[in-house]
Amino acid sequence: MQSFQPPRRILMGPGPSDVSPRVLSALARPTVGHLDPVFQSLMEEIKTALQRLFNAPDHACVPLPAPGTAGMEAAMMNLLEPGDRCVVAVNGAFGGRMADMADRAGATVVTVEHAWGEAIDIARVEAALAEAPTKVLAFVHAETSTGVRSDAATLCGLARKAGALSVVDCVTSLGGIVVDAAAWDADVLYSGTQKCLSAPPGLSPIAISKRAQAAIQGRKTKVRNWLLDFNLLMSYWGGEGGRTYHHTAPINALYGLHESLVILFEEGVQAAIVRHARLHEALVAGLEAAGLEMLVDAKDRLPQLNTVRVPDGVDEAAVRAHVLKVWDLEIGAGLGPLKGKVWRIGLMGASATPWHVRLCLTALCEALAAQGFGVESAKALAAADAKLK
Amino acid sequence: MQSFQPPRRILMGPGPSDVSPRVLSALARPTVGHLDPVFQSLMEEIKTALQRLFNAPDHACVPLPAPGTAGMEAAMMNLLEPGDRCVVAVNGAFGGRMADMADRAGATVVTVEHAWGEAIDIARVEAALAEAPTKVLAFVHAETSTGVRSDAATLCGLARKAGALSVVDCVTSLGGIVVDAAAWDADVLYSGTQKCLSAPPGLSPIAISKRAQAAIQGRKTKVRNWLLDFNLLMSYWGGEGGRTYHHTAPINALYGLHESLVILFEEGVQAAIVRHARLHEALVAGLEAAGLEMLVDAKDRLPQLNTVRVPDGVDEAAVRAHVLKVWDLEIGAGLGPLKGKVWRIGLMGASATPWHVRLCLTALCEALAAQGFGVESAKALAAADAKLK
Repeated sequence: MQSFQPPRRILMGPGPSDVSPRVLSALARPTVGHLDPVFQSLMEEIKTALQRLFNAPDHACVPLPAPGTAGMEAAMMNLLEPGDRCVVAVNGAFGGRMADMADRAGATVVTVEHAWGEAIDIARVEAALAEAPTKVLAFVHAETSTGVRSDAATLCGLARKAGALSVVDCVTSLGGIVVDAAAWDADVLYSGTQKCLSAPPGLSPIAISKRAQAAIQGRKTKVRNWLLDFNLLMSYWGGEGGRTYHHTAPINALYGLHESLVILFEEGVQAAIVRHARLHEALVAGLEAAGLEMLVDAKDRLPQLNTVRVPDGVDEAAVRAHVLKVWDLEIGAGLGPLKGKVWRIGLMGASATPWHVRLCLTALCEALAAQGFGVESAKALAAADAKLK
Repeated sequence: MQSFQPPRRILMGPGPSDVSPRVLSALARPTVGHLDPVFQSLMEEIKTALQRLFNAPDHACVPLPAPGTAGMEAAMMNLLEPGDRCVVAVNGAFGGRMADMADRAGATVVTVEHAWGEAIDIARVEAALAEAPTKVLAFVHAETSTGVRSDAATLCGLARKAGALSVVDCVTSLGGIVVDAAAWDADVLYSGTQKCLSAPPGLSPIAISKRAQAAIQGRKTKVRNWLLDFNLLMSYWGGEGGRTYHHTAPINALYGLHESLVILFEEGVQAAIVRHARLHEALVAGLEAAGLEMLVDAKDRLPQLNTVRVPDGVDEAAVRAHVLKVWDLEIGAGLGPLKGKVWRIGLMGASATPWHVRLCLTALCEALAAQGFGVESAKALAAADAKLK
């Protein structure tokens, strides 16, 4: 058994995205104790930074000590009790996962199903909410499995009108498109570190409204989870009463998240969102010039997660294998019903640069040409470049 | 908001322990995708290394993507269903936590309570098991809150005899004292990375026997947890059928764990255990020469977690504050009923060296002298050195 020396990959799949040298270097800073006063000041800075990033000045914001899925699990397990009704809008893998978790929490789950690649149908969600009193409306803001964006403002508004709490999966959206807890009046929002924040995977920032906190306080049964029990977590992350030992925070991972937040605020959250949109325009122009088609309607597309149809007769796995082997470039495969039918190209955080768009187009055109699906990469690059002027 | 530059601390509390520069450096290697073939080979190496470390050649071994507490939660949530009987031996904070989690899993929980600082009473556990058919016997091998070691071999034997599955908390024991899943015929064992493995906190290695796997397969209800559902986890960490996407593994944290395992095997697990025992003897000799007393009977002491009684009239918090301020040395406070009554001094992994013992004795003697509890540090150091010859 020997030390592991990974290759240098270019990460343009559905996550993780490229991690900057500054964040990698932060991970390697000396470990301090999780009860050390200097670590407590780091925790305070991260809480404040997350409030700013979610635009959630009145929410409790903490990074959960596990990957993005932990945010989903924390939301469902803390808000739902046996007998509660939960409506989940499902238009991809992660909506389906929400429904599974709500079921494990003991809730009565009603799913509003959509074809993968379609946006959430507001009218059908409204109808499902109208059928019976509902505790939670859950949906995915940026469906990583399909590249579809949801109308979060409208969906959260429906939840409010129905007296339900809203749960918004922002794993892929945070830092890449507008996330605005205050404007949406959203209750629970969570994300991951390995998408548009460009830190390594392993943490899940979460924001919890005062309304949601009150609902959790009023539970009749214990949360079916100890590690993610909101009341225990908040006694560790500190309210007014100081800190009580709960778990041991993943200290070095939090150094990385902190540095990624410093970098994001240096650029400006709004500037980062504009950058993602601009690079997405360039990528799509290049892909279309190369003769490829996008899966999702233009109005519903996520800039940071681009699903591209695999042309008839092209071996999609061979294309991914080629770009990985020759260019050290990772792009993602389709999941579930989209398996074999699409590629998923991420433009997230540090991977959303003109360099990445140009490299990806070059590599894809080469891999497609090897299968006789021919376009000149020069043409694709010119189309992308035209958008970047 | 600016980049965070932590001080260099000497970590001799209950965890985290000092992380070696080699492990810190591994954390900062470039992030690759979690489905990348090179990352899959890393996962296979880690699985095999954990089997070796737990001496669990027939167990499924994986690192869970969250701190040590996740191992406890995974054990309780996967093995227990509503109506199952669970006996928990409680002789400190972590036994109490196990009972809480078993309750959240819906089990009927029977605790065998002990005073903090006492070893688990085998006869009373046997009697509790004899009262009714029991699904799980759970106990802590190395109670981090008290510094007490349990007789894991005998307790696992009792579980087998009673037809119960054994759950053994090895968070603080693994790599510091003998952990032997095969010899104990233990069912579920879990640990953390921030104790005797000297990696940063954030992962929980777990080992699950074939018997426990069969019990999980035979459940009548869904596991009350999605992230830690053993069947989903194993489809991701790969059995014979290849890998299915579940969560996104904490890639860089796994680089760190891998490096810490490389370091441990270079030294040899047995040699590391001997080292912990030897340094513990030296520390205790030094503390006693300084006029201090240990909380735990010599036969039940953990070498890696030393609970030292606070002498009458000494302000224990002022001592910890002094050694942190003047020596950058972290030692731990007491928890629960031991709050204010003991210090907890860790000798774990990279923090178990003669240098650490000598520094700790020097700093403690100085802090005590400042409160008029006087011994010369030279005397304490000489007593420690005599054990290190």
